[in-house]
Amino acid sequence: MTRFIVSIVAVLISPFVFAADPEPLPSWNDTGPKQAIVQFVGKVTTEGSPDFVPVAERIAVFDNDGTLWSEQPLYFQALFAFDRVKQLAAQHPKWKTTEPFASVLRGDMKGALAGGEHALLEMVMATHTGMTTEEFDKIVKEWITTARHPTTGRLYTDMVYQPMLELLAYLRANGFKTYIVSGGGVEFMRPWVERVYGVPPEQVVGSSIKTRYELREGRPVLARLPELNFIDDKEGKPVGIQQHIGRRPIMAFGNSDGDFQMLEWTMAGTGPRFALIVHHTDAVREYAYDRESHVGKLARGLEEGPKRGWTIVSMKDDWKRVYSGTK
Amino acid sequence: MTRFIVSIVAVLISPFVFAADPEPLPSWNDTGPKQAIVQFVGKVTTEGSPDFVPVAERIAVFDNDGTLWSEQPLYFQALFAFDRVKQLAAQHPKWKTTEPFASVLRGDMKGALAGGEHALLEMVMATHTGMTTEEFDKIVKEWITTARHPTTGRLYTDMVYQPMLELLAYLRANGFKTYIVSGGGVEFMRPWVERVYGVPPEQVVGSSIKTRYELREGRPVLARLPELNFIDDKEGKPVGIQQHIGRRPIMAFGNSDGDFQMLEWTMAGTGPRFALIVHHTDAVREYAYDRESHVGKLARGLEEGPKRGWTIVSMKDDWKRVYSGTK
Repeated sequence: MTRFIVSIVAVLISPFVFAADPEPLPSWNDTGPKQAIVQFVGKVTTEGSPDFVPVAERIAVFDNDGTLWSEQPLYFQALFAFDRVKQLAAQHPKWKTTEPFASVLRGDMKGALAGGEHALLEMVMATHTGMTTEEFDKIVKEWITTARHPTTGRLYTDMVYQPMLELLAYLRANGFKTYIVSGGGVEFMRPWVERVYGVPPEQVVGSSIKTRYELREGRPVLARLPELNFIDDKEGKPVGIQQHIGRRPIMAFGNSDGDFQMLEWTMAGTGPRFALIVHHTDAVREYAYDRESHVGKLARGLEEGPKRGWTIVSMKDDWKRVYSGTK
Repeated sequence: MTRFIVSIVAVLISPFVFAADPEPLPSWNDTGPKQAIVQFVGKVTTEGSPDFVPVAERIAVFDNDGTLWSEQPLYFQALFAFDRVKQLAAQHPKWKTTEPFASVLRGDMKGALAGGEHALLEMVMATHTGMTTEEFDKIVKEWITTARHPTTGRLYTDMVYQPMLELLAYLRANGFKTYIVSGGGVEFMRPWVERVYGVPPEQVVGSSIKTRYELREGRPVLARLPELNFIDDKEGKPVGIQQHIGRRPIMAFGNSDGDFQMLEWTMAGTGPRFALIVHHTDAVREYAYDRESHVGKLARGLEEGPKRGWTIVSMKDDWKRVYSGTK
């Protein structure tokens, strides 16, 4: 009976809800990408259309770094790791003379990165593990609400893209479940993405370390161990999507070649499919980079994306506004 | 604007939807467990109550084997593995003389299990891997809709518990997200749990093997590899819950000591909490087993559960009916 009433009410309100928005995506210019998004959403949500997709299958996946918020001069999680190194330095006197920690403590970002991914991973392991999941949640929440970006001086959550916030909300209003699928740490994102993006923790897929269930003074905790569990990047993104979601998305949004396989996997399913790449072309309002960039390199996606029918957003041309809370 | 309308409509309909059911849980006797469930759901869904829990945090986790469907004489996934061994035997002539395969092919279940968990894992690896995720999905769907239980002769999906189906639906009607958290393989459950339990694939947490993203004839696939990824049992259940859901459930349902840590983890959070163990006491309508059972052993839960405030269901005394679709 209850289920019946819910169904009736859903049927009664659905045309109202799904058609009520007078102008979706107000921060998008009325150019190709916005038109393509609105057209796609229209056809998959129109009952009776040959392209209609039931609500349960409306899964949309979004990369985070460079797709939902900025990623320059370095992934924000790396900047968080640097801040953690500085915080923890007093407890680790040897860091003053050990790379990459010594460079971070001197404020030498280039030196800190000289060791490449290995050095970064070493810093992540040293600063993201050893505590419980609840303690780490508190550490991230404290940082995300107080730390400032080194060049803009803004809170990091003020460097999220207003057009993408509107896109997330627009898709959810049209029955989509929106997921984040990021190379970043899943527990680095979960503490704040619900507040900032409207994406609940259970809809975040990311890289992870291993945890262990322990009793501490009789109380169960999950201890964060300095051991990699999963890297959710490149070929890992479809693997993470299948592990976590268990069905193929119908829309995928990325910005770098680290997202290539996620978009490829999404587009290889049957029925209507949509893939979009955010191209960072706006050196004035944000950053301009692609093929030669160390962070967020985009070469293959620019080369092959258009041939594969993927939509390319030029931030400079297609977005009226970049960051939330600013012009 | 759309979000505003959705909120208004939700507020208008919520008392109607959540209060409309005249008699929840009709297959439960009006004994302690049903009363405890209804009382708990009432208090966490009553706005203004000190125990009110927002919809986003209403997470309920269910073990599968022995909690939502039967698990005797052996986990049904093991019976699936045996059926797969028989199907694949022609391609593996050596199995006729190699244990544990030889025992399975002779129909000797005891012999097949003589090698313990290691032998079972060997059969799972030999029969559950090598194909793509899409191919495995088809294999499971074919089996689940045709294979019969060795002693009851029923379809396995006719051996799910009607009272638990009602409980899942009742919780969802009260704003809960219902998850399965099982020691079984996640990809063994996903192909049918949405149809049978109303639980979508993205709300299934389970054991898993590793997969690899590959292009086969230009088409991307996820190849299932004979390598364990994660065991979602005992101490692994809270780990799996955190990995997948990223927040602590407020209700947990299990039946064996393999669920102990999941219930313990759920109950250790702040605010209102509920844990329930299904005790198999009904040798006539189902099976009767607990402390001495090889499959679904329940000893610690019976000993400590009541002292910890966990609810114990006696299938014989607390359920009017056991299986769906039968008396």
